[in-house]
Amino acid sequence: MNDSIVELTERIRGFVAAREWQQFHNPKDMAVAICAEAGELMQHFVWQQEQQIEERVERNRDEIVSEIADVGILLFEMADLMGIHLGDAMAKKMAYNENRYPVEKSRGNNRKYNEL
Amino acid sequence: MNDSIVELTERIRGFVAAREWQQFHNPKDMAVAICAEAGELMQHFVWQQEQQIEERVERNRDEIVSEIADVGILLFEMADLMGIHLGDAMAKKMAYNENRYPVEKSRGNNRKYNEL
Amino acid sequence: MNDSIVELTERIRGFVAAREWQQFHNPKDMAVAICAEAGELMQHFVWQQEQQIEERVERNRDEIVSEIADVGILLFEMADLMGIHLGDAMAKKMAYNENRYPVEKSRGNNRKYNEL
Amino acid sequence: MNDSIVELTERIRGFVAAREWQQFHNPKDMAVAICAEAGELMQHFVWQQEQQIEERVERNRDEIVSEIADVGILLFEMADLMGIHLGDAMAKKMAYNENRYPVEKSRGNNRKYNEL
Repeated sequence: MNDSIVELTERIRGFVAAREWQQFHNPKDMAVAICAEAGELMQHFVWQQEQQIEERVERNRDEIVSEIADVGILLFEMADLMGIHLGDAMAKKMAYNENRYPVEKSRGNNRKYNEL
Repeated sequence: MNDSIVELTERIRGFVAAREWQQFHNPKDMAVAICAEAGELMQHFVWQQEQQIEERVERNRDEIVSEIADVGILLFEMADLMGIHLGDAMAKKMAYNENRYPVEKSRGNNRKYNEL
Repeated sequence: MNDSIVELTERIRGFVAAREWQQFHNPKDMAVAICAEAGELMQHFVWQQEQQIEERVERNRDEIVSEIADVGILLFEMADLMGIHLGDAMAKKMAYNENRYPVEKSRGNNRKYNEL
Repeated sequence: MNDSIVELTERIRGFVAAREWQQFHNPKDMAVAICAEAGELMQHFVWQQEQQIEERVERNRDEIVSEIADVGILLFEMADLMGIHLGDAMAKKMAYNENRYPVEKSRGNNRKYNEL
């Protein structure tokens, strides 16, 4: 299992370096690429109604997983480029979210923290 | 260090379950949320010219890292929802990319695999 | 009523020229800005379930209209930058869509043209 | 020339109605579709450096124009769905922008209104 963020990040870093792509991978172009790939992921669900989503997921499973992986690869690289450890940044944000969405106020509703 | 994708995913899963948010987190709405957060990340770089990017990154570092974490949290959850291990999906895609972007053809240029 | 695409486009062109912003408004940065604004528009609907949409629209009407206008302003300018008349490009695409989505095959379903 | 927003909007409205697609075209799904199409438009420029943009535009001109038209068609329909005239909303926003970006403060720089 490929469970280590550090190890995956190192593989991505090596992939980019071997191709001398650091010259293209500045933070702006990374963010643009992440957003473009997230758009491709979302494309699978455009116009889909609630009762169609499950079937859509099954029919396009491989492509959807592939798009998720694309976003992940770019995101890991961007975190690396920012000099941060993605897992630590996520854990910090999770702590923040756990705090601003108290269970008793958030349970069963989808209101934003500023509407609770 | 929070380096395990499995452990981070479990924390996210627990966060969502405690708030009974699974009812809102179907694959379509996950993809929409990922794309919206990726858009927020990209917002930091709109109209920025090459020579301005570095300064922008330094000035907005905390917000940018926070947006990266947001995308990460949603992406880990979506992979979990699809029943896959994100790291394995990424490793598989990396192998695919290493193959379709041979070093000798890709070095120093940003052409897509179908233009090599 | 401001119904003329040409007149609106001229106003936008004048606005940009007076501020000497043509140097920033290349096609790439226009596309990035359009996508970022479209993301802001979409933000209003993240996690919203079908039965919540109408209320959301009423509560956030002014902001949503403002985001639609933002996308429109950038889109009109980008069409201008490409040297095309947006209305003509849209009419041409409508003719294409009318053809690839025949009424008898498309009525009441949301399948893509290649799935009809 | 197809210069009237009202006339184009009526054509789009007729196209949707003939296919009984109003059932799918709620404001949320319209916003998602607009963002997905804006993502496709942006895809043409991912990783492209400043000096490559012009060549990219020329090579992919027809596809880029087609994506711009797609965003336009959806945006006109969404404005219609919100019960507003897109041109009027844009003119109102232009007046607002003219005010918050005074020429003397904005000329030649790309700072946001809150950084002027």
